[in-house]
Amino acid sequence: MSDDGATIDGWVCPMPLRDQPNIVMGHGGGGKLSAELIEHLFLPAFSNEHLDGLGDAAVMDLPPGRIAMSTDSFVVRPRIFPGGNIGELAINGTVNDVAMAGAEPKYVSVAMILEEGMPIDELAWLVQAMAKAAETAGVQLVTGDTKVVDKGHGDGVYINTTGVGVIRDGIDIHPRNVQPGNVVLVNGTIGDHGMAIMSVREGLEFESTIRSDTAALNHLIAALLDAEIDVRALRDPTRGGLAATLNEFAAAGEVGVVVDEMKLPVDRAVASACEILGMDPFYVANEGKVVVVVPPDQAERALEIMRADELGAKATQIAEIVVGHPGIVVAKTAIGATRVVDTQVGEQLPRIC
Amino acid sequence: MSDDGATIDGWVCPMPLRDQPNIVMGHGGGGKLSAELIEHLFLPAFSNEHLDGLGDAAVMDLPPGRIAMSTDSFVVRPRIFPGGNIGELAINGTVNDVAMAGAEPKYVSVAMILEEGMPIDELAWLVQAMAKAAETAGVQLVTGDTKVVDKGHGDGVYINTTGVGVIRDGIDIHPRNVQPGNVVLVNGTIGDHGMAIMSVREGLEFESTIRSDTAALNHLIAALLDAEIDVRALRDPTRGGLAATLNEFAAAGEVGVVVDEMKLPVDRAVASACEILGMDPFYVANEGKVVVVVPPDQAERALEIMRADELGAKATQIAEIVVGHPGIVVAKTAIGATRVVDTQVGEQLPRIC
Repeated sequence: MSDDGATIDGWVCPMPLRDQPNIVMGHGGGGKLSAELIEHLFLPAFSNEHLDGLGDAAVMDLPPGRIAMSTDSFVVRPRIFPGGNIGELAINGTVNDVAMAGAEPKYVSVAMILEEGMPIDELAWLVQAMAKAAETAGVQLVTGDTKVVDKGHGDGVYINTTGVGVIRDGIDIHPRNVQPGNVVLVNGTIGDHGMAIMSVREGLEFESTIRSDTAALNHLIAALLDAEIDVRALRDPTRGGLAATLNEFAAAGEVGVVVDEMKLPVDRAVASACEILGMDPFYVANEGKVVVVVPPDQAERALEIMRADELGAKATQIAEIVVGHPGIVVAKTAIGATRVVDTQVGEQLPRIC
Repeated sequence: MSDDGATIDGWVCPMPLRDQPNIVMGHGGGGKLSAELIEHLFLPAFSNEHLDGLGDAAVMDLPPGRIAMSTDSFVVRPRIFPGGNIGELAINGTVNDVAMAGAEPKYVSVAMILEEGMPIDELAWLVQAMAKAAETAGVQLVTGDTKVVDKGHGDGVYINTTGVGVIRDGIDIHPRNVQPGNVVLVNGTIGDHGMAIMSVREGLEFESTIRSDTAALNHLIAALLDAEIDVRALRDPTRGGLAATLNEFAAAGEVGVVVDEMKLPVDRAVASACEILGMDPFYVANEGKVVVVVPPDQAERALEIMRADELGAKATQIAEIVVGHPGIVVAKTAIGATRVVDTQVGEQLPRIC
């Protein structure tokens, strides 16, 4: 259960489906049970002019120009965690990926793989969370798909979202555009999402609950672009964490990255959880953070703009791009040493998103 | 194994990944193992200018106008079957859904949920099948995602594809446009896909193997539109079969549909398999068929155009749209009786696509 007032306890599905409390194989069969699921559960939550057409494909207008397209499947466990749930995460994650190309996210598709036995009331609750997240982000859920797999071949629900957005003229945001002298900003504390999930799984308790940072970052990014900040690169440090993002910048731009470890914003409870579990916040997934690379003379203004958004209240500069050691990320530690921050080989946190 | 020369036996993955023959959790972790999977397995197969950018989102040009967007997850079992495989199906299915809106499919995203233990050589083989299917359909695979779930929470691989296409000016194809007097055409035999899958599962053997009809129908549909056939509605009768499609037309157009059962093209082995398993070809899934509704005076020309395409060699007229019994589909049987063809309630064939 989420601890932010969004709890499924006592919540009642507005339209019980043929008195069936759980998903059965027939809900994926393309017959009447499928139709009921769509009409009574998905449509009331997601309703809009495009979805209501209910064609094999949604039909929408798009202004001319370049589009950005991104897809992600979400398999996070548990499905409901402090600060969020798989439905909200699925919307925010894809909205963010589209926004990272400097695009305004417009339309999102939703495809669910349901496991036989999934409680329908929980599904309906997650669907409402998706609708709310879409509204906050300002995107429309225009087309969808539901499949059902037999028990033991899924895990309740897996959600795929694919997003399409429109890129404004003149924008070219890409890690290859990162240049020596640029500085690296982040909009707040790192590691929150990953450690929120891990704390639940491991049963860790702290004075304050660690909450996922899941959020849609498109409005914050739009504010930077509206102000004509010369954004070189944007990335949301999800799987692989900040380390993966900075290494990607180093590789794509053929530059070095120097992180000031003392400046990394890490919540105290997150730091404690990392210590207990032997993890490094550098590698822990975030779901509401964006790493922004800008020329040094625009850093202050960019930080001001980010801080004006509640998702960027703790925005800060964390690193510099350098000519030396191209392709390599190093961190200056508290005692003045430097260490190489490589990407990890395998999995630090399975099924984190 | 497919019986059309496309067999995985003896096939060798061109680039073994760290000598790991099977998917491990780390392949979904966003670290080096993930990167290797992308660089050595997906990129060589799918390579194109958009994908090679490897951003969170792909960036593409689109002409101005309306776009069509469709998403589908594929969970078919077995993954490789006579006439096709889950990879090919995932491309063709989404290409077809976009084409059913009268759009030219252009870009497709691919998201895989891999189960721990999935053989990497089979995955690579499926990926090559996807690349080949995309080439045949003329679409680009522009962005992707890979997640790994622990053993017992998946089934080898589930594939989501989402497609975007561009609708030519003046086109308005939708089941609501179906009108009394219109006629209903189909491009070939029905029930092939569903019975190919069921025959494998049930171990049925016939003189000739029943093969899935999986195919991309966008070129056939483009030929109809190029010829300025006044296409009222298009639908690929997948899950729920022809019965679901005709009932959708009846409901959306508030019209009746009268099918001439004697004219339904059904392969002899498919008919036998249906009889043995107690199934009705009306309800069996197709993956390479399109139901086309046109005004009666254009039926002959439409059939000629369809027959000129190898996917439409057996195109034929199967039904008429009538004023009577709105919302209801009836079939005239061989002995001159009529029966109502309703949609099924639940699942006839689980995990058929």
